[in-house]
Amino acid sequence: MKNLQVAFQGEPGAYSELAAFEYYGDQVVTIPCETFEEVFAAVSEEQEQEIYGLLPIENSLAGSIHRNYDLMLRHELHIIGEYHLRVAHCLMALPGVKLEEIESVHSHPQALAQCEVNINRLGIQQVVEADTAGSARLLREWGDPQAAALASSRAAEVYDLEILADHMEDNPANYTRFIALARDPLSVNSPEDDDYKTSIVFSLHNQPGALFKALSVFALRDIDLTKIESRPIPGQLWEYMFYIDFAGHYHAQSGSRAISNLKEFAPFLRTLGSYPRHHLKSVYSETT
Amino acid sequence: MKNLQVAFQGEPGAYSELAAFEYYGDQVVTIPCETFEEVFAAVSEEQEQEIYGLLPIENSLAGSIHRNYDLMLRHELHIIGEYHLRVAHCLMALPGVKLEEIESVHSHPQALAQCEVNINRLGIQQVVEADTAGSARLLREWGDPQAAALASSRAAEVYDLEILADHMEDNPANYTRFIALARDPLSVNSPEDDDYKTSIVFSLHNQPGALFKALSVFALRDIDLTKIESRPIPGQLWEYMFYIDFAGHYHAQSGSRAISNLKEFAPFLRTLGSYPRHHLKSVYSETT
Repeated sequence: MKNLQVAFQGEPGAYSELAAFEYYGDQVVTIPCETFEEVFAAVSEEQEQEIYGLLPIENSLAGSIHRNYDLMLRHELHIIGEYHLRVAHCLMALPGVKLEEIESVHSHPQALAQCEVNINRLGIQQVVEADTAGSARLLREWGDPQAAALASSRAAEVYDLEILADHMEDNPANYTRFIALARDPLSVNSPEDDDYKTSIVFSLHNQPGALFKALSVFALRDIDLTKIESRPIPGQLWEYMFYIDFAGHYHAQSGSRAISNLKEFAPFLRTLGSYPRHHLKSVYSETT
Repeated sequence: MKNLQVAFQGEPGAYSELAAFEYYGDQVVTIPCETFEEVFAAVSEEQEQEIYGLLPIENSLAGSIHRNYDLMLRHELHIIGEYHLRVAHCLMALPGVKLEEIESVHSHPQALAQCEVNINRLGIQQVVEADTAGSARLLREWGDPQAAALASSRAAEVYDLEILADHMEDNPANYTRFIALARDPLSVNSPEDDDYKTSIVFSLHNQPGALFKALSVFALRDIDLTKIESRPIPGQLWEYMFYIDFAGHYHAQSGSRAISNLKEFAPFLRTLGSYPRHHLKSVYSETT
C-alpha cells in the first residue's frame, strides 16, 4: 500500500509541512508547492493516487489568510479536517555553535516580529528573509557559524541544524488553524453523535437585516458559530461572500435544516465540508 | 489662515494623496508618511495646527486593509468622514514618448495584476516595484524612454510624466474606501435628518448566538449594516473584535438606542465616529 500524499505551500521544513505530519501522520509523503494555487491545483487533478492538501486558514495573532478563502470558492474541493498547530519558533544554528556566538538571526518578517522581545534580550541583529524554512536552508548553504535562523523544529531536522532555543515567540497563544482538503467529501457513520464542524460560504441580497436573518437560522436552532469572515465579490461593488463555520454536521438534523432554511433566501450557498472538530481549548492547555 | 494639513501613507503621487486632495480639497498640504502607524502618530500628536489623516480601509476587489482596523483600536482617534476613490490606473512615460516605443511597465504587483489583460494586449513586459507612485518617481530618475509606470494621474503631475492611457484596470468596479481621521469627533447640528454612517468596534462573550444577539439590536430597529469585519484579539485564542458600520448617527435616536442596547452585553464597545455618508452607487454610476 502506498503512502498518503499531501501537498502543502512552502519549502521542506515549513510550518505547513510540520502540520501535515502532525495531522496526517509521520508516514505521509509531503509535496512542497510554491503557491497556495498550486496546492489547490495538485489536489484537484485527477490521478491514480489521490493527493490531499493542508492549508493555513487563520492565525490566532495575525488573522485569516484571506487568499485561501478566495481560492476555496474557485475550486470544487472539500474540507475533510482541521488542525490547530501551536507555532513554536525555534532558534537554530550549525551544529556545535553556541548561543553566545550568534550575531544575527534570519527569518520571515512575521516570525521575527513575533519573537521581538526574546531576540532583543539576546542582543542579536534581525535579518529579513522570504520565509522561515528558507532561512534555515540558506543558513546551511552559507555555513556561517555566527548566524541563526528562526523556523520550525522540522526545519532543523531537514537542514541538519541544532536548536539553541525553542519557544522564542513572545506570545504563547500563537496557533495556526489548518484545513485538510480532498477531492471528495468525508463520509461518516454518525453525523448526529460525533463532534463535527461544518464550513459553508454564501451570498445575501444587499438589504437591511439580511445578515441578521442569515444568522437567525443558526441561532434559532442553538447552533454555535465558531467563525464568520466576509470577502468582497469582485465586480459587485461592496457586496460580500460570507464564510461561516458552525458546530455540527450538515447531515445531522439541525445542521441540515439550518442550511436548507438559509438556502430559501441566500442567492448562493455552498457547503465546503463537515469534519471532526479539533478542540482548541484542550490543545491550548496541553502546551501552556 | 493656514491650509489644512493631511497625513497619508505613501510617496507623493500615491492614490492616498490623490484621495486626500479629492476629499479635503485642492488647498490642503499633504504630509507623506512611510507607514500607516506614522499616519496615526501624526494625527494623534498634540500640536499648534491640527493634522488630519486619510487612510485606505477597504478595496472593492482586494478586501479590507486589516492593519488599519487593528491600528484604529490602538489609537484614540475619531472617524470624521469617508471617501470612495475610483482607482484609475494610468500608463505614464517620459514626455514625448509614444505608446509603441514602450517595452516594459513598472508598478506595484497589485496594480499590475489589476491591469493584466490590458498590459498583455499591449505586449509589454511587467516589472514589479515597491509601489505605484514610487515607480513613477523611478521612471523620472532613470530617464528611460522605453519604460512606463502604472500609477495615479496625480503621480504623472508630480513627476512630470505624460499619460499614454488611462483606465488601464481590467475591472471598472475598482474603488478604495478611505476614512478621514481627526483627534476630535465631528460635531453636527442635525443627527436625525442628514445622511450619516457610524463605525463601532466591540467584543462579545464567546457563547452560542452572541453575534446574532449583537446584530439583533440593529435589525430590530431597521438599521442597515453596511459592513462587518472580524479581527482576532491577540492573546485570547479564537476570540474576535467585531467592526460594524451602520447607517445613521450615534446621536440620532435609533442609533443611540442600538448602541446602549449592545453595551448591555458587549464586554467592550467603542464608537469610532459618525460622519456624512459618501454614496457609492452614485459614485459608481457617474464614472461607468
